[in-house]
Amino acid sequence: AHDMTTLKGKPFDRASLESLMRRRMFYTPAFEIYGGVSGLYDYGPSGCALTNNIIDVWRKHFVLKENMLEVDCTMLTPYDVLKTSGHVDKFADWMCKDPKTGEIFRADHLVEEVLESRLKGDKEARGQKVDVDEEDPKKKKKKVKSITAVKLEDAVAQEYEEVLAKIDNYNGEELGLLMKKYDIRNPANNSELLPPVSFNLMFQTAIGPSGHIPGYLRPETAQGQFLNFQKLLDFNQQQMPFASASIGKSFRNEISPRSGLLRVREFLMAEIEHFVDPEGGKKHPHFDEVKDVELELLNREVQLAGKTHAETTKIGEAVKIGLVDNETLGYFLARIQLFLLKIGVDPKKIRFRQHMANEMAHYATDCWDAELLTSYGWIECVGCADRSAYDLTVHMKRTGAPLVVREPRKEPLKVEEWQCDIDKKKFGPKFKKDGKAVEAAIEALSQDMREKLSLDLASEGKITIDVPAVGDGKVEVPKELISIEKRTRVENVREYTPNVIEPSFGIGRIVYALCEHTYWTREQDEARGVLSFPPTVAPTKVLIVPLSSHADFKPFVRKLNNKLQDIGISSRVDDSGASIGKRYSRNDELGTPLGITIDFQSVKDDSFTLRDRDSTQQVRSSLDEICKAISNLVNGTEQWSDVAQRLPKFEGQEVD
Amino acid sequence: AHDMTTLKGKPFDRASLESLMRRRMFYTPAFEIYGGVSGLYDYGPSGCALTNNIIDVWRKHFVLKENMLEVDCTMLTPYDVLKTSGHVDKFADWMCKDPKTGEIFRADHLVEEVLESRLKGDKEARGQKVDVDEEDPKKKKKKVKSITAVKLEDAVAQEYEEVLAKIDNYNGEELGLLMKKYDIRNPANNSELLPPVSFNLMFQTAIGPSGHIPGYLRPETAQGQFLNFQKLLDFNQQQMPFASASIGKSFRNEISPRSGLLRVREFLMAEIEHFVDPEGGKKHPHFDEVKDVELELLNREVQLAGKTHAETTKIGEAVKIGLVDNETLGYFLARIQLFLLKIGVDPKKIRFRQHMANEMAHYATDCWDAELLTSYGWIECVGCADRSAYDLTVHMKRTGAPLVVREPRKEPLKVEEWQCDIDKKKFGPKFKKDGKAVEAAIEALSQDMREKLSLDLASEGKITIDVPAVGDGKVEVPKELISIEKRTRVENVREYTPNVIEPSFGIGRIVYALCEHTYWTREQDEARGVLSFPPTVAPTKVLIVPLSSHADFKPFVRKLNNKLQDIGISSRVDDSGASIGKRYSRNDELGTPLGITIDFQSVKDDSFTLRDRDSTQQVRSSLDEICKAISNLVNGTEQWSDVAQRLPKFEGQEVD
Repeated sequence: AHDMTTLKGKPFDRASLESLMRRRMFYTPAFEIYGGVSGLYDYGPSGCALTNNIIDVWRKHFVLKENMLEVDCTMLTPYDVLKTSGHVDKFADWMCKDPKTGEIFRADHLVEEVLESRLKGDKEARGQKVDVDEEDPKKKKKKVKSITAVKLEDAVAQEYEEVLAKIDNYNGEELGLLMKKYDIRNPANNSELLPPVSFNLMFQTAIGPSGHIPGYLRPETAQGQFLNFQKLLDFNQQQMPFASASIGKSFRNEISPRSGLLRVREFLMAEIEHFVDPEGGKKHPHFDEVKDVELELLNREVQLAGKTHAETTKIGEAVKIGLVDNETLGYFLARIQLFLLKIGVDPKKIRFRQHMANEMAHYATDCWDAELLTSYGWIECVGCADRSAYDLTVHMKRTGAPLVVREPRKEPLKVEEWQCDIDKKKFGPKFKKDGKAVEAAIEALSQDMREKLSLDLASEGKITIDVPAVGDGKVEVPKELISIEKRTRVENVREYTPNVIEPSFGIGRIVYALCEHTYWTREQDEARGVLSFPPTVAPTKVLIVPLSSHADFKPFVRKLNNKLQDIGISSRVDDSGASIGKRYSRNDELGTPLGITIDFQSVKDDSFTLRDRDSTQQVRSSLDEICKAISNLVNGTEQWSDVAQRLPKFEGQEVD
Repeated sequence: AHDMTTLKGKPFDRASLESLMRRRMFYTPAFEIYGGVSGLYDYGPSGCALTNNIIDVWRKHFVLKENMLEVDCTMLTPYDVLKTSGHVDKFADWMCKDPKTGEIFRADHLVEEVLESRLKGDKEARGQKVDVDEEDPKKKKKKVKSITAVKLEDAVAQEYEEVLAKIDNYNGEELGLLMKKYDIRNPANNSELLPPVSFNLMFQTAIGPSGHIPGYLRPETAQGQFLNFQKLLDFNQQQMPFASASIGKSFRNEISPRSGLLRVREFLMAEIEHFVDPEGGKKHPHFDEVKDVELELLNREVQLAGKTHAETTKIGEAVKIGLVDNETLGYFLARIQLFLLKIGVDPKKIRFRQHMANEMAHYATDCWDAELLTSYGWIECVGCADRSAYDLTVHMKRTGAPLVVREPRKEPLKVEEWQCDIDKKKFGPKFKKDGKAVEAAIEALSQDMREKLSLDLASEGKITIDVPAVGDGKVEVPKELISIEKRTRVENVREYTPNVIEPSFGIGRIVYALCEHTYWTREQDEARGVLSFPPTVAPTKVLIVPLSSHADFKPFVRKLNNKLQDIGISSRVDDSGASIGKRYSRNDELGTPLGITIDFQSVKDDSFTLRDRDSTQQVRSSLDEICKAISNLVNGTEQWSDVAQRLPKFEGQEVD
């Protein structure tokens, strides 16, 4: 169990934070007055502004800094694209159904819960201490409501532990066998479940009035970026490396969503696809700038040994010793950490965990997750995957579009090779719309295969090749349309498919983790929650508080408000009758970092007090000075300590 | 036909602009390498940055300025919500199918096209001049390919004209009758079509693994805002009026999309829901600030008379004479115009058109569209509808949630009325989950109905009421559960359902219109397109051009680039071998307003030239002065004319 603490080291109480977040409208269950739909949440004014500000920092930190090409592609995606990318076949979880009640379970979660509860029961029966619920993100809405104290045989307990350690790696059939072997049933009514079936996690729809174009809501923003690769390379004037980026919603039809904002069906992603030449070790031109950044790295070997100890390592060192595969991957790991720190994530609650080989998505060859520690455990918030040339290759194969980079060689390259010559005039009429796919399949033939086919062509007068996208997948090409010969080719242009390094940010998860990391309660009043967001990301920057509802204060309120609006700073006026303390307290919960009090002194000499949320210190100065300080604090060019030193302290009307 | 001209008064050529927009990746057909899907477009780096900058201005102009409560609600929306809102029944177009080919036509568009082509044929037959295609947005992909010169009888031609004038107002049955009467068939093969059927324009999907929750992709962002009304009012500390706002994608499964970016299936909207007390004439507290703004108003009466002349009117006057119904509606019309001007829309190409009674959406009681003149005609880009209490009322009726404002009365109100008393203890057990709906239906009974039902109760011992959401829509309530009596009630609290004024922005349409409005070609070179975006919204602000690829220039490029990044200004370096003129020309097409040239002088004295895109004037000064000028131009605090006056002119290395 994690002994989570607040920003100030006190025990963390998730229920208090969640109540605060709902009360102050960071988020709210969507369609609540209609009973709600699980896994769908709306962001209220506080959550929406916080998210927008984080996105703003993200754009500056990544897109602006690296001249990334930001694109905005459609969410509606036709079947063919996602069939090719592998999502139609592989983006799925295993579910099993109770045939009596119709209730549906996610198979791996069910096996996990039942075995864990039996192990707890075993411990109880043995008189051992049972951990308080660890609140793993996967176990919020427990199916297993109570633990029965039943002793297990030592060997059985051991087996359960082994199964649990590998729970992410079973396929449907294996999960079905485990359920049979360990007699795992519906915990609610003990009835037997049907065997696990694959459930694709994409939302399906039909595009157009005839319903002829089946489509999905995208599961990631990446595919739109890949499909536009050629045009983006053109836009970048053929310069490599370069990156595209996209911010937008993606969708995942979870079998049974849980853990609040952490596992939802519609979510905001910010994804970067950095295209890099696979030759020469995937260097990054700015790697030197980050090489001394220290990261907590939890590598694959440590995890294989059943440990979770992360090692503090400079990223330069990690790349040098081959722990992180290449500079580009390393560069982004460091940049991801710098971004997370910039928005206020607790540096003690970040680690980078390398994926196990069998845990990676179907397209990845290596992957490190930036995980943030929360009361739900370590949560993947940013994935940083090396997708190699997977996506560009499959789309090129399927469509024939040249998703490649061509660059002039300094020295021409001589290659002796088997070449296929196609008679294009006859090719078109014979294969019609399939022509491109067949041509691409021929293009893709290996040298060995070409050699073998040249013999077929001589002996049978035709060749048969695999073209998955056409008919039954086999296509015959007669010798009138093709010849295969060994020749020497001089290559003046090098052509290659770039590899892709993909940092992919789950913004909702980051927002939630940030709230946990910045939450604390005032010494004097445990019930008084504070969210210490940095001014840059805080939903509202300034609370304007007139000391009373006295008419003299009104023009000052208006003047301040207008002045702040003019310099683009979001402020809120609270001229309610509540005490100043109450008003500040409400804004502690909203994470408002600064407060301006208007008092009788203001009316006399046009001076105002500026209050810091975290220290509750106040300074007093002129309107211009106060606004300049606010602007600096919000832009991050000054800290409160600088302001407190620069401007006269104020100890007057303190908060009650 | 519109004689469209460019920003500089030359004839406008849409093909050139569209070619520029695709070449420079403002947008591109989505999934193009897969053959594309009509009505789906991706925004490339230029379009995406332009859109983001427009959204940024929008947030400052509306959300920040008015302290609006921005929310971000899910796109996935369950059936019940959209059934209640009326979209399941009424958000539809009429389509008819060719039973032989399966081709599908939008019925109103087909009737329109066929009758128009016959009228043209008639004109031709009469030897009259036939207008060159007016390129109405509704007619891009013409079904009717050629015009046949056939003379019509005068009366028939007259009838056709009348039908066309009312084409937006026919329902499916009427369209079917017209098609029979005028023998309208598939223009391609002359085969008869099936009668029009209603086609709902929402994309359907299923939420969750069992497929039990039917849902749609939202057709507007508004519903999410309405459903959260109660919480937003709480967040706003019960203060009225207030507005919520939302920026996000919405979806519309068009029968046959056309007109490029103007009619698409997935689009970005920015919507405001301003909640206002319907009593007291819907005043707006800041109306005075805008009352002198002049708008081009095209009202309902003028349109009824078959005219299209818009009248220049101060909005204060328009509200005073009742042309625009109320201050809040008027306030937003003026604010919409100010926003459009701020982002660079041509003031001569804006008008506000009032909807005809039968043209309005099912929820609207009044509506004015901000229309922008484009080569497709006048295009609705912002709708500003008075939705009255429609949405809050239907959702409240359906769910029982109190979507109302309660405020203390200054004077208690005495009301003599029929009251229904419910025995809640018995009510729950009898109606179970339907209890709330039944209660809400009783609450909603009129005084007359209550009086009548009190008699039923006395005579029959029960009443029967309509509750559409329960069973067959009729519910019996026995006298054990309810009593109805006439009493005097003292009302200390006033309860009312707010009305909603909704300014709703189609961002994609605004982006496209803005490109048309800012487009022109250089005097010297007609092929050289320029997009004169204001610096605030331009995708990239500064082009950095080293005079040559000389190594001495490199550190200056880096220094400039870093400096601009630090102050949040997006720049691009072009150090390609192309001539300076070519490089500037490319950036004219991207709408980059400013250019910095690094030359040998820069290396000597650290001075740079700053070039204005529109005038091609240059000034020369120090790095700090140049950056300050750029920052002012981007923030809108200075115009180029100010900078040109302030800093020394430079006449050196001019562009070739």
